[in-house]
Amino acid sequence: MSKNAKISNVVIKRLPRYKRYLEELQKQGVDKVSSNELSRMIGYTASQIRQDLNNFGGFGQQGYGYNVNALHEEINQILGLNREYRMAIAGAGNLGQAIANYTLYYKNGFIVDTIFEVNPKLIGLKINDIEVLDFDQMVDTVHDHNIDLGIICTTKESAQEVADRFCRGGVHGIWNFAPVDLKVPDHVALENVHLSDSLHSLVYYVSRQEAAADDEK
Amino acid sequence: MSKNAKISNVVIKRLPRYKRYLEELQKQGVDKVSSNELSRMIGYTASQIRQDLNNFGGFGQQGYGYNVNALHEEINQILGLNREYRMAIAGAGNLGQAIANYTLYYKNGFIVDTIFEVNPKLIGLKINDIEVLDFDQMVDTVHDHNIDLGIICTTKESAQEVADRFCRGGVHGIWNFAPVDLKVPDHVALENVHLSDSLHSLVYYVSRQEAAADDEK
Repeated sequence: MSKNAKISNVVIKRLPRYKRYLEELQKQGVDKVSSNELSRMIGYTASQIRQDLNNFGGFGQQGYGYNVNALHEEINQILGLNREYRMAIAGAGNLGQAIANYTLYYKNGFIVDTIFEVNPKLIGLKINDIEVLDFDQMVDTVHDHNIDLGIICTTKESAQEVADRFCRGGVHGIWNFAPVDLKVPDHVALENVHLSDSLHSLVYYVSRQEAAADDEK
Repeated sequence: MSKNAKISNVVIKRLPRYKRYLEELQKQGVDKVSSNELSRMIGYTASQIRQDLNNFGGFGQQGYGYNVNALHEEINQILGLNREYRMAIAGAGNLGQAIANYTLYYKNGFIVDTIFEVNPKLIGLKINDIEVLDFDQMVDTVHDHNIDLGIICTTKESAQEVADRFCRGGVHGIWNFAPVDLKVPDHVALENVHLSDSLHSLVYYVSRQEAAADDEK
């Protein structure tokens, strides 16, 4: 682990993107790829790519390039994708169902075990074969089912309470979609998808572009 | 506009977060707030906050703090949130429906006008009162309905074609949920929500934490 331990967060954040492009190449049946070719696909400079990939071993050979399968496998391993993760979703609304579907569709190693809900109309049902349980059963179920990841698709008002229960149940990571900044213990990883922040950034650039277009008239 | 034109992207990316906390304060009926109080809430340092907010005018008064409503209003204006945006969604699957619901629920100024689909079973229906139209009608409808923002909730295989049609129809911005990097003209703003990249980052930190915990045993 010591080799990987020093990879910076900035590089780690770029790995999923490399992974996506390598999967494209695998689909096309491409065996090897140069940093220049990767650069044209991904948009990073070739020297940036060489520097990033040098971080975790010497795959590239001068004049040969990278072995696509080996590089993909190594990135999977670094990202921790060479195993299964059991997940539970809190909130069976549209977003919770979308995420359940998304991960199902997505497969490789992500298993949605349970969905927790407060709405009595949904409790006891199955959504895409996933059991919907009462929010009150959360801590015990998360513990008993060995859930690794908790996914929060509730309102922002409930999100911290849900996070607390996930943590008490023993999850190792939380994927939060509620528009709120959560507090979790240090040993629990937290990744936020703040959709409203993303929409607001988009709108800023749109209003800028429109103002610039108006100025030109 | 010249005053705002020089605000850096990094600061702009932080504004939605300020906005969220200011809205919390408004709900609690708080009129004014100091940079130290904001720092405790948001987690940025007080000096960072003062620097950020100084970028767009002098709201803070020494010993008084920031006027919550005025600051919120100014941030809305900078972000371009003081007007309406007409949006169209491509893809009426779970994610498309979740986003339609999300923005409905969300209100302030975002109107989902149309959803485009290829699935004949869905075309002609209404989802949350929003008309589902045939994908083939996209370019004309986007143009005729004056759609500002196109939201892509399709598969990655269809996403570029969908983006092209949105652009031909005249959108000013694209909010992309498909796991692919799109090419759009320079005058169209692009914001990506790459869910799989986010999940992969989370899993990386989880596998790290678990490895560290194992090492301690």
